[in-house]
Amino acid sequence: MNQIKVGIVGYGNLGRGTEYALEQAADMTLAGIFTRRDPASVRPRTGVPVYTMEQVERFQDEIDVMILCGGSANDLPHQTAELAKFFNLVDSFDTHAKIPEHFETVNKASLESKKISVISAGWDPGMFSLNRLYGQAILPNGADYTFWGPGVSQGHSDAIRRISGVADARQYTIPSESALARVRAGEAPELSVREKHTRECYVVSEDGADKTAIEKAIKTMPNYFADYDTTVHFVTQTELDQNHAGIPHGGVVFRTGTTGENGKNRHVIEYRLSLDSNPEFTTGVLVACARAACRMNREGMSGCKTVFDIAPAYLHPENGDFLRKNLL
Amino acid sequence: MNQIKVGIVGYGNLGRGTEYALEQAADMTLAGIFTRRDPASVRPRTGVPVYTMEQVERFQDEIDVMILCGGSANDLPHQTAELAKFFNLVDSFDTHAKIPEHFETVNKASLESKKISVISAGWDPGMFSLNRLYGQAILPNGADYTFWGPGVSQGHSDAIRRISGVADARQYTIPSESALARVRAGEAPELSVREKHTRECYVVSEDGADKTAIEKAIKTMPNYFADYDTTVHFVTQTELDQNHAGIPHGGVVFRTGTTGENGKNRHVIEYRLSLDSNPEFTTGVLVACARAACRMNREGMSGCKTVFDIAPAYLHPENGDFLRKNLL
Repeated sequence: MNQIKVGIVGYGNLGRGTEYALEQAADMTLAGIFTRRDPASVRPRTGVPVYTMEQVERFQDEIDVMILCGGSANDLPHQTAELAKFFNLVDSFDTHAKIPEHFETVNKASLESKKISVISAGWDPGMFSLNRLYGQAILPNGADYTFWGPGVSQGHSDAIRRISGVADARQYTIPSESALARVRAGEAPELSVREKHTRECYVVSEDGADKTAIEKAIKTMPNYFADYDTTVHFVTQTELDQNHAGIPHGGVVFRTGTTGENGKNRHVIEYRLSLDSNPEFTTGVLVACARAACRMNREGMSGCKTVFDIAPAYLHPENGDFLRKNLL
Repeated sequence: MNQIKVGIVGYGNLGRGTEYALEQAADMTLAGIFTRRDPASVRPRTGVPVYTMEQVERFQDEIDVMILCGGSANDLPHQTAELAKFFNLVDSFDTHAKIPEHFETVNKASLESKKISVISAGWDPGMFSLNRLYGQAILPNGADYTFWGPGVSQGHSDAIRRISGVADARQYTIPSESALARVRAGEAPELSVREKHTRECYVVSEDGADKTAIEKAIKTMPNYFADYDTTVHFVTQTELDQNHAGIPHGGVVFRTGTTGENGKNRHVIEYRLSLDSNPEFTTGVLVACARAACRMNREGMSGCKTVFDIAPAYLHPENGDFLRKNLL
């Protein structure tokens, strides 16, 4: 049997999304969930067994690939390299500036264990990165653009919640329609931070809080909001819960470039994602990369990989004959 | 020196496009052009030497990879397998139904010569195929859509020119805006051939020809036009030459799918190309695949590959460290 046996590490939004995504993968089976919490407190929807992280080593021969569903701030920086000593694995490490360092430590562990680890899988980093790479490779004489949204930024929502007097908040990042139109037309514009995105904030204030002060604190917050045109809407907790409970996201990667005589011919490549659920789409990428990790390791490969290093055919359940006949 | 020495086989639109594209590739050098015509009749813009096809074998040690710029109907079915006996190579074979057969013959030759051949590179087959594969791998529960245009279809233009009384013609394939909008909204509609594309024909009739008969012959032509809403515009040769000399093309690949509880979350992946020059964009893909073929062969790989088998990093001139730091 070539059925791929999968473990999930962490059971938050990503872990639950992975549990759903594995039901759409006929060649993969969920074998267990691993948690740092008390296993009795974790109730997986599918009833799959839950184990503690301390038990993980004993599953070396039973699990083909681990999908790490922890966070980039606190979990993955140590967890990925630790688990890479024993398992093929996939993570969604997304702290861009620390990716080279993360790669080095995980690569060392995976080379020693002769396993495959795929880091930074998801949509950005992940599918957006792939489209930046393909675009540059095909149109070397050109410009890159990445726009995010419309979608919820967890980091910006958290930043608002830390302001005194704020009870709850949700922040949407919105790409500028006029900037998108200019790039799409092949103008190759230089765009400032302010020209590319706007920010919309839905804020629940605490009783008696100074709304003017909150709005000012948001709009002047360095890095997060000061460089953007920001709109603040005060809403009730009920309104926030009813109208802003989803976690949609998405965005667009463009590569524009010129070719031929005096660069007279313009070309535009546009890759756009429109996602009802950011974590559930991310888990679709994680599961496909888990399939690839397992297959690459079965062929004798080892070490740390990213989406850049995975021949696309490894991600799809069908074989080469099928893919050439039906998808090429 | 790791400079990649490239040969071009055939000097039509694709050959000239490749000559331009190689000027944008700092790691590659054009070493020669090979033609079935009299070499004296071929005048490359860059002044690179021109050789006959009979001379090609003697360049085995001087050329790292051949880019085949012939046509899928008459040249590539025999030329690719023949040259695969001696060279790493790339072609743009685009007769979808015959790809599996082409793959088998080319693969046999490349395995024997221990070289790499990349077949069916371009945008469809090529980048569109890749996006169909990535889309299905990430969103297994969903639907695929490929739209072509707005752009010139050479095959449909040729079909019109074969009608009695037609002096010249240019046909544009136009994707339906309403169909695009429905797919983009995540409706997952079932679309008939007629609903997806319309066809616009610019026709120069011969003196005294029966325009009504020509228009009827076009609109009722099986396979090419009968299943589409087709518009015919009669123009003068001067108008055709002035306004319809370009060969723009492009299109959109969508993957839409659902995830999560009862499939309640919808996702849309859209990959769109808008190309001023169909052949020049195609050569951008060919050149990137030529780089990959050469690098993969230097690592000891051989056989026939498609874009599905090429780890993306091989296509980009920079190394893994650079790509992880700057593009991931």
